[in-house]
Amino acid sequence: MILDCGITFPQEDMPGVDIVIPDMSYLIKNKHKIRGIVITHGHEDHIGAVGYLLKEVNVPVYGAKLALGLLESKLNEMGLLSIAKLNVVDSNSKVSIGCFKAEFIPVNHSIPDTYAVVLTTPVGIILHTADFKIDFNPVNERVADLNRFSEVGNRNVLLMLADSTNATKEGHSMSEKAVGESLDNLIGRSSSRIIIASFASNINRIQQVLNLAEKYRKKVCIFGYSMRNNIKKSIELGYIKVKKGILIEEFEIKNYKSKDLLLIVTGSQGETNSALSKIAFKRHQKISIDKNDLVIRSASVIPGNEKFLYRVINELFRRGANVIYQSLSDVHASGHAYKQELRLLITLVRPKYYMPVHGEFMHMESNAMIAMDMGINEKNIFLLENGDVMKVSSSKITVDEKITVGASFIDGSGVGDLGDDVLKERMILAQDGILNISAVIDKTTRYLKAEPIITAKGFMYEKESDDLMRMIKIMLKEDFDKYQKSTLHISDLHNIIKKRLRSYLYQETKRNPVVLPVIIEV
Amino acid sequence: MILDCGITFPQEDMPGVDIVIPDMSYLIKNKHKIRGIVITHGHEDHIGAVGYLLKEVNVPVYGAKLALGLLESKLNEMGLLSIAKLNVVDSNSKVSIGCFKAEFIPVNHSIPDTYAVVLTTPVGIILHTADFKIDFNPVNERVADLNRFSEVGNRNVLLMLADSTNATKEGHSMSEKAVGESLDNLIGRSSSRIIIASFASNINRIQQVLNLAEKYRKKVCIFGYSMRNNIKKSIELGYIKVKKGILIEEFEIKNYKSKDLLLIVTGSQGETNSALSKIAFKRHQKISIDKNDLVIRSASVIPGNEKFLYRVINELFRRGANVIYQSLSDVHASGHAYKQELRLLITLVRPKYYMPVHGEFMHMESNAMIAMDMGINEKNIFLLENGDVMKVSSSKITVDEKITVGASFIDGSGVGDLGDDVLKERMILAQDGILNISAVIDKTTRYLKAEPIITAKGFMYEKESDDLMRMIKIMLKEDFDKYQKSTLHISDLHNIIKKRLRSYLYQETKRNPVVLPVIIEV
Repeated sequence: MILDCGITFPQEDMPGVDIVIPDMSYLIKNKHKIRGIVITHGHEDHIGAVGYLLKEVNVPVYGAKLALGLLESKLNEMGLLSIAKLNVVDSNSKVSIGCFKAEFIPVNHSIPDTYAVVLTTPVGIILHTADFKIDFNPVNERVADLNRFSEVGNRNVLLMLADSTNATKEGHSMSEKAVGESLDNLIGRSSSRIIIASFASNINRIQQVLNLAEKYRKKVCIFGYSMRNNIKKSIELGYIKVKKGILIEEFEIKNYKSKDLLLIVTGSQGETNSALSKIAFKRHQKISIDKNDLVIRSASVIPGNEKFLYRVINELFRRGANVIYQSLSDVHASGHAYKQELRLLITLVRPKYYMPVHGEFMHMESNAMIAMDMGINEKNIFLLENGDVMKVSSSKITVDEKITVGASFIDGSGVGDLGDDVLKERMILAQDGILNISAVIDKTTRYLKAEPIITAKGFMYEKESDDLMRMIKIMLKEDFDKYQKSTLHISDLHNIIKKRLRSYLYQETKRNPVVLPVIIEV
Repeated sequence: MILDCGITFPQEDMPGVDIVIPDMSYLIKNKHKIRGIVITHGHEDHIGAVGYLLKEVNVPVYGAKLALGLLESKLNEMGLLSIAKLNVVDSNSKVSIGCFKAEFIPVNHSIPDTYAVVLTTPVGIILHTADFKIDFNPVNERVADLNRFSEVGNRNVLLMLADSTNATKEGHSMSEKAVGESLDNLIGRSSSRIIIASFASNINRIQQVLNLAEKYRKKVCIFGYSMRNNIKKSIELGYIKVKKGILIEEFEIKNYKSKDLLLIVTGSQGETNSALSKIAFKRHQKISIDKNDLVIRSASVIPGNEKFLYRVINELFRRGANVIYQSLSDVHASGHAYKQELRLLITLVRPKYYMPVHGEFMHMESNAMIAMDMGINEKNIFLLENGDVMKVSSSKITVDEKITVGASFIDGSGVGDLGDDVLKERMILAQDGILNISAVIDKTTRYLKAEPIITAKGFMYEKESDDLMRMIKIMLKEDFDKYQKSTLHISDLHNIIKKRLRSYLYQETKRNPVVLPVIIEV
């Protein structure tokens, strides 16, 4: 059984890569053993790669209504919807997946319809918390079902896998309702146009904004592809309820006064092509910032996005907007459990073995410390790396095998996976550029038939190029002369040119461009 | 007069750039008007580009002992030390720079010997706070001289320029002494080897660590070029005091037990080539992480460095170290004033005009709000952008001119400045790679003399290359045939090949590689 199958976004050492999916080769090799895929919730890092897996391993998929609804749109875009076997589950479901039985416990998170998974296996019960928090004042949904956790705890849980994202944070995560109160204060007191940026998947946050729009008699217009898409889907599936007449279309905006308008937009991370970024930098066709606009950024920042985000916030201030972002006000609550919530769940479940998951190693380490403090034996806590194989029996757990896993890089049309080699070439090109030397040689006399043509891209600067070019030409002449007078093979000539030019260029410029000689024999 | 002249570090859209310095062209054009350079303190973003300026505009430089000491090392590396006119100043100095008189008020910051600058000009007094904080419990230095600020305030300050870095933060910045207490707790209770990473310029932090090493009878070894350099210079100039026998060299480490060792290292930002990073990833020649090492990261993270830093912290945990970083403990204090300190200084100085400086726009905006709340008229507060020219007279300030300023990119040996064009080329190469087509044509018959050679770098992937190559060859054949049968110029052929291939490749792969045809006529 596969639990979740998501994507991640590229790092700075993966230029030109659009998305990163898991390397599926181990799964494909073992497809005859796979009985199903269970989805805990509808975030990209949990559903984004399901389509890529189904192409190769078309087993049934189990998940809650919203998660499968969002997955459907993706499978549709990939032309896979007709072949996919999607099965909606809820808190009452008990499904058999091979020799496992799966049940689902509602938890809170930053997207509705998130479920922890209880797997009854031949060797014992395994509980996966999913990405979770415990919100005693949630919006539009019930509190995480603590009674179910307690009841499962009474059945002897062998192994518990728990979300580590916020395991370094003391206390209890903030409630979604408290965010609503902050937003109510801001929206209620504002007499300007309001622009709110949030994650497109944070359905309950969007519901709160829509409720406040109704309360303060504002018209709401939605900007950004994923935001429009998710809100549409959520209204369709009943996860968002909005009175008629609140939502308006772009072309209707001109009929209303600024103070009666509230825009919900994508771009909470400062993404270049998001609605908020386009609006800030005057690249949006319809909307630009007016002095006194109130811009509220209701989201956390994903590490690595800080610089992009600050650029957008600075630009909004520059154009005269009043920007509320998280370090100034409580306009966002995390969807992941803090220390107290992890302690509460461990108390209810009392597992024999414990495995921190979901988070960087430092977060998993902190999660492990919590479990130790709660009395779980250090030997029974497992900190695994990607690819580690955990073998679970009723009496012991062993981790002594490793399979090859990794990432596949998808770019452009996704025609092919990008290999590491291509990425390495791109990195070198990006650092120091390329120098191409094209030349023609006479097959019989071995003489150069014309002056070689030298082209630099991303490498030379005007100031220095004259001197360098003169010297490169002198060196090439020497190399071609040497070739002519010798019995060297043409590939030797390639190597000589590369080696001498690289060392000369490094010495002169401290740069290492790709040197690409192309020699044609005629 | 120039106030400070620093560098910044490259962003992710400047591949291959090592450092970024200000564009000096306006200064060079107006060098006859420049009488001197005043340095407020010895941080890279304040002294790093002085050498580049002195090469073109060799005027006297004024600064405190430590700042000029650090500057000396840099000028020495650039071969400029003999021509530079360096003048050490202190809190008693009054120096004439053209028609200005400069005085210096000690403030606190994250490097010793930082001074605010009071300029008496023909039109009134201008006060620049420098990067500052007010530390009532500083280490190894006096509290920022509030009496001097008060006294200058009594002389009617026309314009005050104030540090905005932490202007969004409520309250008063943490004292350096409190950091010492946290470190004392950690070092005193530890029975393991200790590794402390900090900014190499945070001299007083290093002094505290050395004091604690003495207190707990540990031997200290220093790793990392800038750390060794700065500590050596600071001992030389009297800013760091350390008892004989505390500092040991690398080769002596083996003579001591782990628990008696404390290493001070560079790498608090996760920089790839820093000592800490090398130690974490087993790339260091002498030191690797032992299980139970206590690693303390005593520094803030500069936005944009988070990912690199987390990679290092994760790796340290993975190897069994106990890592203390800032979100877990008070092991760092910022060097920049919070809101209360700005309010205090405004109260003492009572300037007529106010100008937030140093920080992103959102921080300067917040600083402006503080000044407004303190009663400074909104019209008298100036939020300027780089290049804005502020004209100050005794009765009014105008900002209605803009000069061209910007950044110069220095890479490799710094032979030449990198232009924007080169950077753009590199970005394109990084995104999608390059496709080179080299071909030979007979001058008289216009026929191809041999099959064109096609080379891809950072672009094609094995899976797709066969099909693409076949099609590229067919298209090239068509293009060359067309050329042969026509009277087209060779440059037309270039354009045809580029245009057709680019559009075909985009259609097939959704990628836009650089297409570089090189056609040699023989």
